[in-house]
Amino acid sequence: MFSPSSPPARLLEKAFQYIDLHQNEFVELPNGQTLPIPPIILAELGNDPKKPTVCFYGHLDVQPARKEDGWLTDPYTLTEVDGKLYGRGATDNKGPVLAWINAVSAFRSLEEDLPVNIKFVIEGMEEAGSVGLEELVREEKDQFFSSVDYIVISDNLWLSQRKPALTYGTRGNSYFRVEVKCRDQDFHSGTFGGVLNEPMADLVALLGSLVDSSGHILIPGIYDQVAPLTEEERKMYKAIHLDLEEYRRSSRVKRFLFDTKEEILMHLWRYPSLSIHGIEGAFDEPGAKTVIPGQVIGKFSIRLVPHMDTSVVEKQVKQHLENIFSKRNSSNQMAVSMTLGLQPWIANIKDNQYLAAKRAIKTVFGTEPDMIRDGSTIPIARIFQDTIQKSVMMLPLGAVDDGEHAQNEKINRWNYIEGSKLFAAFFLELAKLH
Amino acid sequence: MFSPSSPPARLLEKAFQYIDLHQNEFVELPNGQTLPIPPIILAELGNDPKKPTVCFYGHLDVQPARKEDGWLTDPYTLTEVDGKLYGRGATDNKGPVLAWINAVSAFRSLEEDLPVNIKFVIEGMEEAGSVGLEELVREEKDQFFSSVDYIVISDNLWLSQRKPALTYGTRGNSYFRVEVKCRDQDFHSGTFGGVLNEPMADLVALLGSLVDSSGHILIPGIYDQVAPLTEEERKMYKAIHLDLEEYRRSSRVKRFLFDTKEEILMHLWRYPSLSIHGIEGAFDEPGAKTVIPGQVIGKFSIRLVPHMDTSVVEKQVKQHLENIFSKRNSSNQMAVSMTLGLQPWIANIKDNQYLAAKRAIKTVFGTEPDMIRDGSTIPIARIFQDTIQKSVMMLPLGAVDDGEHAQNEKINRWNYIEGSKLFAAFFLELAKLH
Repeated sequence: MFSPSSPPARLLEKAFQYIDLHQNEFVELPNGQTLPIPPIILAELGNDPKKPTVCFYGHLDVQPARKEDGWLTDPYTLTEVDGKLYGRGATDNKGPVLAWINAVSAFRSLEEDLPVNIKFVIEGMEEAGSVGLEELVREEKDQFFSSVDYIVISDNLWLSQRKPALTYGTRGNSYFRVEVKCRDQDFHSGTFGGVLNEPMADLVALLGSLVDSSGHILIPGIYDQVAPLTEEERKMYKAIHLDLEEYRRSSRVKRFLFDTKEEILMHLWRYPSLSIHGIEGAFDEPGAKTVIPGQVIGKFSIRLVPHMDTSVVEKQVKQHLENIFSKRNSSNQMAVSMTLGLQPWIANIKDNQYLAAKRAIKTVFGTEPDMIRDGSTIPIARIFQDTIQKSVMMLPLGAVDDGEHAQNEKINRWNYIEGSKLFAAFFLELAKLH
Repeated sequence: MFSPSSPPARLLEKAFQYIDLHQNEFVELPNGQTLPIPPIILAELGNDPKKPTVCFYGHLDVQPARKEDGWLTDPYTLTEVDGKLYGRGATDNKGPVLAWINAVSAFRSLEEDLPVNIKFVIEGMEEAGSVGLEELVREEKDQFFSSVDYIVISDNLWLSQRKPALTYGTRGNSYFRVEVKCRDQDFHSGTFGGVLNEPMADLVALLGSLVDSSGHILIPGIYDQVAPLTEEERKMYKAIHLDLEEYRRSSRVKRFLFDTKEEILMHLWRYPSLSIHGIEGAFDEPGAKTVIPGQVIGKFSIRLVPHMDTSVVEKQVKQHLENIFSKRNSSNQMAVSMTLGLQPWIANIKDNQYLAAKRAIKTVFGTEPDMIRDGSTIPIARIFQDTIQKSVMMLPLGAVDDGEHAQNEKINRWNYIEGSKLFAAFFLELAKLH
């Protein structure tokens, strides 16, 4: 049995030639301390020009976990209970990394020729924003990545407990801050209430102009670039297994904005959404304080979908907020900025590796996969696709209830073993199709 | 010279008969520690049924002060610099308390008969919300306060540097919290953005429905009970000395909502105002977090003016927010509550003690006073007026720039000495008019 605390990096080191980069770079923590960035491991096995080359991306770092957070077992000792392997990183992302290594090892143990050339990119900063990764991919584009034909990421989950999935898209994200300032000091509402353009009133009006109560975004032009829905795509949502009532119950939500599986999935994956996250600089504590905040900053973000573009969205949002603000004739100052712009990602699902993965799933699990997207943003997929200009596929192994980032994270023994088989079958199918 | 650290209570003890109450009561601090409540001092001097009885209210507790906050002198050692007496409590409220004692002492030193009977209410919890005071006033209504004809409070400031003022009203305050809840846990905006009625969108819409960009409150009926403006009242604002440009500059505000002195004063004193203070439960820190808060609480308050009533305002606000919320057809739960309801206070300025104070001001300062109100809420004035049912007057001594609650609080030597004279002159005038 593997343990999340015994680094799979050791296994990699034994089996592959690896290159250690970023050894001398440091990251600064919020407390001022600096730490060296863990090396990004680039490894390779095989260099046969007649075989396709598959590059697997994974990460070995994990979210924090402490027993007292509510873990039923020691988070750093892998513990099997009723066929479930509990431990921090079990599903995110050490389990899938090991499953891939298992698949490669299987061919070597059986003394069979590996049908594909293998490359690995294994990082240790994924949970902290993949510091240094994009730079590395760009730097190695014409070296390490020059022979890569396909990129596989296995860092997400299925949509259900038992049915495998293939992920072909993720939403992007444009994160905004809008600041309204009267002066850099607060006011007392008894002394000044009634004669000021209060920054909070301006900000609430600005934030209130963004989205209506049905979730429709009110920023002019924002839907212009959204890809039209095709009949083929519509059929894919229909085929997906999702028990809406169970999903609603497990989400502990009284009612969703939509009543059908198809609408829910489309609004999570293929339509943009806007969320207001909060306000900095106002009174945010329990109790009562009669303050007029002098300067406040609203935070909101838009999840982007194909073919929206962060730079277009940035212009639309700024234009809209400036219009709303100028109509208020306020004496305050307003400033809008996009603090993060991550493009959405979508793959061509007719590419060979998607066909190969479908066949491998059929072989191992006896079913067609759910063709899914992820409503969240996984920037690395788009970065690989844009930089290396090769097909990227997300091939998850874990079940929907694995609880990545939560207490009692696990991967099912079944998923881990069948997942290892899936990767091996995928190598064979890919070699046939290539 | 007096020192803010030598308790005027000692002086009181020597000169007056005093009653010590609340000796065995305790207040609990946020850290769980309990402290005894300082006694409220009730003192009296004279009991001549032919003389009017004036009760003076003051407090001996102060705001916190540390040298390192930016004090140029030791905050607890009274220090005179250029005719200004610096020290914590100098103007709020030890200076005025001593000035009143000086006035009483003057008659005794000159062996002249005091023209009025004197009572004192001196508390030590004013800066912490006057804990226990309202209860005491009610308990002592038919005992200690039964013979009181007039109540004088000297716990605020003039509107200018040199021109004395009489304060005849303060605004009340209704403080609200409005909670919108989907569930008690937050959501990730990638995983759920697009299918939820997000609590922040609901809350922003609710808060955005309260006040327009010109400061006008949008809650139906809220202005119904506001006292109509009379011609006589309008003239009072006109007579008040206020350099609007200087006021604007010292407030560090680019532009007020109104352009004239009269409008500014009326909107601070005799019209209600609504301020949005902040939101609890949302993302309020620097940086970016892609959270959909599951449960958020908005805080706002309305400064009330005569003849608004907290219980009517409470109903209007609840009705309004329920209307707005029901139109959104949200699946979230909303709850509104008024967490604080303090009535506005206004005095009859034709009462004898106002006339006496005006004459005394004319005698000592050679001018008519500014007839002013306070936009803030000073609950004790309304409590005295409602409970004892006698005339309450606020007769400030300090200049507008005294900086109560701020660093380098001071009272001018001139204000302190002329203020002591003013109180003595007031006794004489009041006895004549009574």
